[in-house]
Amino acid sequence: MTISYAGEVPNGSSFGCFWRILCKWRGSVYKLVWRELLAYLTLYYTINLLYRFAMTEEQQRIFEKVRQYFGAQSETIPMSFVLGFYVSLVVKRWWEQYKLLPWPDTLALFISAGIPGAKPTPGGFKTTFKDETGRLMRRNIVRYAILAYVITLQRVSLRVKRRFPTWQHVVDSGLMLESERKVFEKMDGKSPMSKYWMPLVWATNIINRARKEGLITSDHIVQTLLVELSDIRRRLGALIGYDTVCVPLVYTQVVTLALYTYFVAALMGRQLIPPAPGSTSKYEPDVYFPLFTALQFCFYVGWLKVAEVLINPFGEDDDDIELNWLIDRHIKAAYMIVDEMHEEHPELLKDQYWE
Amino acid sequence: MTISYAGEVPNGSSFGCFWRILCKWRGSVYKLVWRELLAYLTLYYTINLLYRFAMTEEQQRIFEKVRQYFGAQSETIPMSFVLGFYVSLVVKRWWEQYKLLPWPDTLALFISAGIPGAKPTPGGFKTTFKDETGRLMRRNIVRYAILAYVITLQRVSLRVKRRFPTWQHVVDSGLMLESERKVFEKMDGKSPMSKYWMPLVWATNIINRARKEGLITSDHIVQTLLVELSDIRRRLGALIGYDTVCVPLVYTQVVTLALYTYFVAALMGRQLIPPAPGSTSKYEPDVYFPLFTALQFCFYVGWLKVAEVLINPFGEDDDDIELNWLIDRHIKAAYMIVDEMHEEHPELLKDQYWE
Amino acid sequence: MTISYAGEVPNGSSFGCFWRILCKWRGSVYKLVWRELLAYLTLYYTINLLYRFAMTEEQQRIFEKVRQYFGAQSETIPMSFVLGFYVSLVVKRWWEQYKLLPWPDTLALFISAGIPGAKPTPGGFKTTFKDETGRLMRRNIVRYAILAYVITLQRVSLRVKRRFPTWQHVVDSGLMLESERKVFEKMDGKSPMSKYWMPLVWATNIINRARKEGLITSDHIVQTLLVELSDIRRRLGALIGYDTVCVPLVYTQVVTLALYTYFVAALMGRQLIPPAPGSTSKYEPDVYFPLFTALQFCFYVGWLKVAEVLINPFGEDDDDIELNWLIDRHIKAAYMIVDEMHEEHPELLKDQYWE
Amino acid sequence: MTISYAGEVPNGSSFGCFWRILCKWRGSVYKLVWRELLAYLTLYYTINLLYRFAMTEEQQRIFEKVRQYFGAQSETIPMSFVLGFYVSLVVKRWWEQYKLLPWPDTLALFISAGIPGAKPTPGGFKTTFKDETGRLMRRNIVRYAILAYVITLQRVSLRVKRRFPTWQHVVDSGLMLESERKVFEKMDGKSPMSKYWMPLVWATNIINRARKEGLITSDHIVQTLLVELSDIRRRLGALIGYDTVCVPLVYTQVVTLALYTYFVAALMGRQLIPPAPGSTSKYEPDVYFPLFTALQFCFYVGWLKVAEVLINPFGEDDDDIELNWLIDRHIKAAYMIVDEMHEEHPELLKDQYWE
Amino acid sequence: MTISYAGEVPNGSSFGCFWRILCKWRGSVYKLVWRELLAYLTLYYTINLLYRFAMTEEQQRIFEKVRQYFGAQSETIPMSFVLGFYVSLVVKRWWEQYKLLPWPDTLALFISAGIPGAKPTPGGFKTTFKDETGRLMRRNIVRYAILAYVITLQRVSLRVKRRFPTWQHVVDSGLMLESERKVFEKMDGKSPMSKYWMPLVWATNIINRARKEGLITSDHIVQTLLVELSDIRRRLGALIGYDTVCVPLVYTQVVTLALYTYFVAALMGRQLIPPAPGSTSKYEPDVYFPLFTALQFCFYVGWLKVAEVLINPFGEDDDDIELNWLIDRHIKAAYMIVDEMHEEHPELLKDQYWE
Repeated sequence: MTISYAGEVPNGSSFGCFWRILCKWRGSVYKLVWRELLAYLTLYYTINLLYRFAMTEEQQRIFEKVRQYFGAQSETIPMSFVLGFYVSLVVKRWWEQYKLLPWPDTLALFISAGIPGAKPTPGGFKTTFKDETGRLMRRNIVRYAILAYVITLQRVSLRVKRRFPTWQHVVDSGLMLESERKVFEKMDGKSPMSKYWMPLVWATNIINRARKEGLITSDHIVQTLLVELSDIRRRLGALIGYDTVCVPLVYTQVVTLALYTYFVAALMGRQLIPPAPGSTSKYEPDVYFPLFTALQFCFYVGWLKVAEVLINPFGEDDDDIELNWLIDRHIKAAYMIVDEMHEEHPELLKDQYWE
Repeated sequence: MTISYAGEVPNGSSFGCFWRILCKWRGSVYKLVWRELLAYLTLYYTINLLYRFAMTEEQQRIFEKVRQYFGAQSETIPMSFVLGFYVSLVVKRWWEQYKLLPWPDTLALFISAGIPGAKPTPGGFKTTFKDETGRLMRRNIVRYAILAYVITLQRVSLRVKRRFPTWQHVVDSGLMLESERKVFEKMDGKSPMSKYWMPLVWATNIINRARKEGLITSDHIVQTLLVELSDIRRRLGALIGYDTVCVPLVYTQVVTLALYTYFVAALMGRQLIPPAPGSTSKYEPDVYFPLFTALQFCFYVGWLKVAEVLINPFGEDDDDIELNWLIDRHIKAAYMIVDEMHEEHPELLKDQYWE
Repeated sequence: MTISYAGEVPNGSSFGCFWRILCKWRGSVYKLVWRELLAYLTLYYTINLLYRFAMTEEQQRIFEKVRQYFGAQSETIPMSFVLGFYVSLVVKRWWEQYKLLPWPDTLALFISAGIPGAKPTPGGFKTTFKDETGRLMRRNIVRYAILAYVITLQRVSLRVKRRFPTWQHVVDSGLMLESERKVFEKMDGKSPMSKYWMPLVWATNIINRARKEGLITSDHIVQTLLVELSDIRRRLGALIGYDTVCVPLVYTQVVTLALYTYFVAALMGRQLIPPAPGSTSKYEPDVYFPLFTALQFCFYVGWLKVAEVLINPFGEDDDDIELNWLIDRHIKAAYMIVDEMHEEHPELLKDQYWE
Repeated sequence: MTISYAGEVPNGSSFGCFWRILCKWRGSVYKLVWRELLAYLTLYYTINLLYRFAMTEEQQRIFEKVRQYFGAQSETIPMSFVLGFYVSLVVKRWWEQYKLLPWPDTLALFISAGIPGAKPTPGGFKTTFKDETGRLMRRNIVRYAILAYVITLQRVSLRVKRRFPTWQHVVDSGLMLESERKVFEKMDGKSPMSKYWMPLVWATNIINRARKEGLITSDHIVQTLLVELSDIRRRLGALIGYDTVCVPLVYTQVVTLALYTYFVAALMGRQLIPPAPGSTSKYEPDVYFPLFTALQFCFYVGWLKVAEVLINPFGEDDDDIELNWLIDRHIKAAYMIVDEMHEEHPELLKDQYWE
Repeated sequence: MTISYAGEVPNGSSFGCFWRILCKWRGSVYKLVWRELLAYLTLYYTINLLYRFAMTEEQQRIFEKVRQYFGAQSETIPMSFVLGFYVSLVVKRWWEQYKLLPWPDTLALFISAGIPGAKPTPGGFKTTFKDETGRLMRRNIVRYAILAYVITLQRVSLRVKRRFPTWQHVVDSGLMLESERKVFEKMDGKSPMSKYWMPLVWATNIINRARKEGLITSDHIVQTLLVELSDIRRRLGALIGYDTVCVPLVYTQVVTLALYTYFVAALMGRQLIPPAPGSTSKYEPDVYFPLFTALQFCFYVGWLKVAEVLINPFGEDDDDIELNWLIDRHIKAAYMIVDEMHEEHPELLKDQYWE
């Protein structure tokens, strides 16, 4: 689930405001980087120990030359620049995808306003046939909207795919009826393209029928509903578009390659070795832990991890968007708007400032 | 409350235009940074004095080596670059959140145009039942819009949460009626999701009823009102989205870590110590106050403070948005539009240029 | 008034295309920077002369050390980076504000289409009452739109405030009637909030009345007019929002502080002094004018001046937007559309290509 | 076809998440760069061998001087900066173009809702004439929308041009009728401008006729359809605009020139040659493979390749958008919505949560 | 005319994809820069020859000192940074202006759908009066739209101003009638403001009249047409806004000054002179052509040329937008849509996939 920490840092003016953020573990840079760092340090020390204990003096001289060459050259790739632009791009796409996720609330609001038909009051009069049809239509339209949502996310999100691996799982969750499953299975045989738009077409047809049968009394409502449905379709289609057309592979590779090359070079070039015997330079202390190389590793790899986490915002990272929670929320809220709360509102009372 | 200083710098061409801005205290970088700077300098002098008075000569030589190593390496992290991109992102999100705050004025304007029914003139004729219903509806709809606004902000803003810690406080303020509080409490028991959309559903239902009872005479108005209500819902939902899905934690951590690491390294690497006895270098004067390290600290920490202040724009910083003032303003303005000013306008007179 | 120079550089391919731009004075970097530069050079020479003629040799040695320290450290603040991001942000906000300024032309067009009623032809038949009401309404609605515009700008712009310091000035200009002034004054007593939306509410009420009295014959026009009016309100409200919520003070301060600190340090660190007697270095010529420090000053301070000029786009800088001209233009154009040109168009003739 | 790899990196928190991306070949930086790199290394070794074996000692001294000069100067062009901004711009345009591609689904949805007329059920009653007309109209309108799509892409995409080199090919695919081909050919003779809008005009005329003949029963549908058609036209026009008005040639040339100049200079300046006999510098090891120059080449040329691939997003690169697949998908989906699924929806059943 | 080269680089994966772009002359960096470069080199050699042949030895020593000072200091201005941000801004504005150019096709489509009235078929029945009026109206409305377009561009574009220097030229082109010219001339006397909106007001009035006379049968069409007309007005107004309010002069000056200062300093500081007699440094070869200074000149001045060309996108550069071609295209296309193609569409036939 997404890590929300805005509530923990309401006041930037307090002392050490971001410190408590540094101590989080879930979704943190430590959790993301520690395995890579461990592997890196292991390699570093292997080389270091080889130099110190396994090499002849001549080999050491060659090693020192190679180290010199690597150390001097590794700065020639301006990594921070390309990383800055690349992470910027990935963050932008991540947020656009989040904003594209449609919310069925608006549709539910419009449907509730447009298609009348109360549900039977518990101990009350029997509803007419028309009332029941209205209710059926309302519930089915929002169900179709959420179904389209789920079908799309099944395709783009590993989490949702885990929850609904087959059509049968969707049927079991109550979002799809048995008869609809058959239609989808028949269609799957015909063409492999995504079929998220089919429930939306059904929803359109129901709206159309409701207009013809006189349940919807105004063309304005039909127009508003159609525009809203097509907006949902646009968003879902765009989400699939973001999934199909990623950041160009070559860009991601260039950035990743630059980073890994840099640190492979640093493995050699930033080895901390005892100063050569004849040297009097006091500027190369014999430090046993490559502190700054490790820090740099955390920093750059952590920066790239931002991109790795966000390039697929619907995965299973700590910081990815919790789609399954959203699906449950949408089912509950949408049914409530079109059914329980339909045509109900608190009594019209005079408010406190009435005069 | 937000610090507005645009009015103080109308003319960039005047001499020293930004100087008066440097002298502000509320919301200033000084107020934000002084505690951190004090702590940092304390640490700096502790180390400095330890070196000068508590260390043996050999310890001093080791210290100098470590200092050399830290001083040389601390530039390897291109902090200004990552800070630039990060602060850019946070500033962009801050402004988007500000722009998302809905204003009820538009809704009030549409309602005033759509639902007729004057209020009784003081010493005049009695209003009919229809007049009163219209007025009740208008007032209730805008009240619901503001209620949805308050419920959303209660969730995302510490300020508003302080003002309305419980439902009872909202009832006391006159924005919620007793009966509505019960509905919310019942719902709270059922599901923990945000319920900001419920008043908007009620508002929709009232509009729908007004259309059925003939108070609203045209479907166009209904359409316009529904679209406006759904726009308010979209904005409030997006505000909650910004609160739930922050800037990814790992990004914030990478930036903060880089900054703090840099200055911890500077604690050692930029110690100003007397030149070694044998050294003849005139380039290292024995300065007692680390002026440039302090300035750099103010600069970089101040830059990060921009992000710390803006990452939660609805907190209690000097520069955060004054939501409570906005809520009061909205209540006053919305009631005025739908009630006091309803169907009133100055007499139609010929203007000065009439010919 | 804004400096428009696009017309002077139509062709980038011509030789020295931007040279003529360098020779402009109004709104130029020279005009903005010369005072600051003069003050800076005065300080520079004061210190320089003190060193050369007023210091003892020992003081000079200390001075040289301090100069060394300042010169070496002043590069540690990456000013160009923070300036680049900051100026980018200010330029973006400046342009967004300019684009938000509403133009009453669209509203006038819609009103002219929606509310009929010709003005009396000079020597012709007398207009009916209905005709006159229509004309009155049209003129009043656009007047209200422009009045809302002026009231908003009074608040955000020094120029407009100078032109209309009090309500009385607005009345005198013919934009407000005496009766309306009283309403505003009464309201000012009640609440200090901005009242730009009041004329728009009146305009809505007039439209509503026109629909009821049958002058407007279709609900579509009412819908279109209401949407346009609410768009004007949104823009004016957003302009006030940009004025109230500036670029966060701390950001502006960080940038300004960094700049001034840099040049204060440069006052010491870039003093051009005669080489030390024993030195044989030919690399420090004894130059009497700190040419490059002055150029750098122009460059960086000029860059910041871009932000200083644009942070309040409605001030009185040479490059600020000429709002008073816009107000006059809007009055003229809007009245012309709704009145003089109302229902008039050239005779429908066959064009040249008719066949 | 586009390389979709988002599904392969769902979890950034897994160890070495981007490693599997480094191993891809299709669309990879290796596939794009290897020919250039080979050519570059060939040149490099030619010069290197010339120096080592073909030059007299004096020539070698001159060569070393030139190498020195080239090596020192080649850093004076800040390539990473201009590349960063340029690639950013190209990537932005690439994504905007992708987003502009219209999807006929929305239009199909609206048409299906607006123009009734079922198709004959297999073993059922005969359809009336009106039913058939409706079906004909629906199918023709979506066909025209896709035809406009294809005509546009024929112009901007090499792939689509390959598939439909002549009008006849479009006719053969069933998207164009023989009679329509004649109209296009007649028009081609008259004017060379793009004619993508002609099918859209026909679609408009069909809609207009459907309204007149009473098949469409509401003006709202006509309005919605016209707006949607004009949106498709706007998108197609904008695609042609992006094709006609590229990134300015001079910008592309500046970036490309800078890159090639840099590496031509590096050919000389980064030659790894044996240290001069008298030199005791241990810092220039005699390395036989210019490892870092090669890496830098991959990095910078790879970065530029991002731009080269994306500057024409509809070409035939591995990473370009697969338009032919999209065309087939649109034909299938659009016909299905307006025909097979027209007025059909699963029976309205009570869902699982019905109570 | 704009240089379109996207079609020449469809495949980034081909070897040396951008090479053919480097060989273009029209709109190229060479064509833009060669005059400046020639002038610069002339200056360079003048100084160089003066030093070598006209100076006494002592003057040479002074010259060398000045050269040293200039060479060391000229790097203190981070030009690439400010250029990057500035060019980014100009490119963004350039593209926004291009996108703002309205296309009359949409308006023509709506008019064709809304105002009926066929043109007389060659050998057929005579058209009624109503038919002719409809046709007249349609043709006049699109003519007015294009007229507004031309009047706007006359103001912002040198090319269009060249084509239509006076009203008479517009009349001659058939876009304006004699009677309309008189109105414009009368108005020119009254006020100097731009009058592009006048034809749009006439168009509105014609639409209004068409509705009143019953040619337009639905209010929806009127609404759609008015919204489209106001969109055209908004775009034309915004184009004038971009022309009036340029990139602030001070920004352009700062960038240009920085660039020219840099290269004036380089004239001195990068003079390639023979090494001083006593010097043994092998690092300063005596090169006769300042290769890298020239390359840097091309690079930086070429980068600025991007801005110089794009700052006025409607000028006469090779890369500026070909407005005159667009005007002709719009006249042809718009008349064709509203007249020739009006109410015509190919016979409704069953397509290939009909079953």
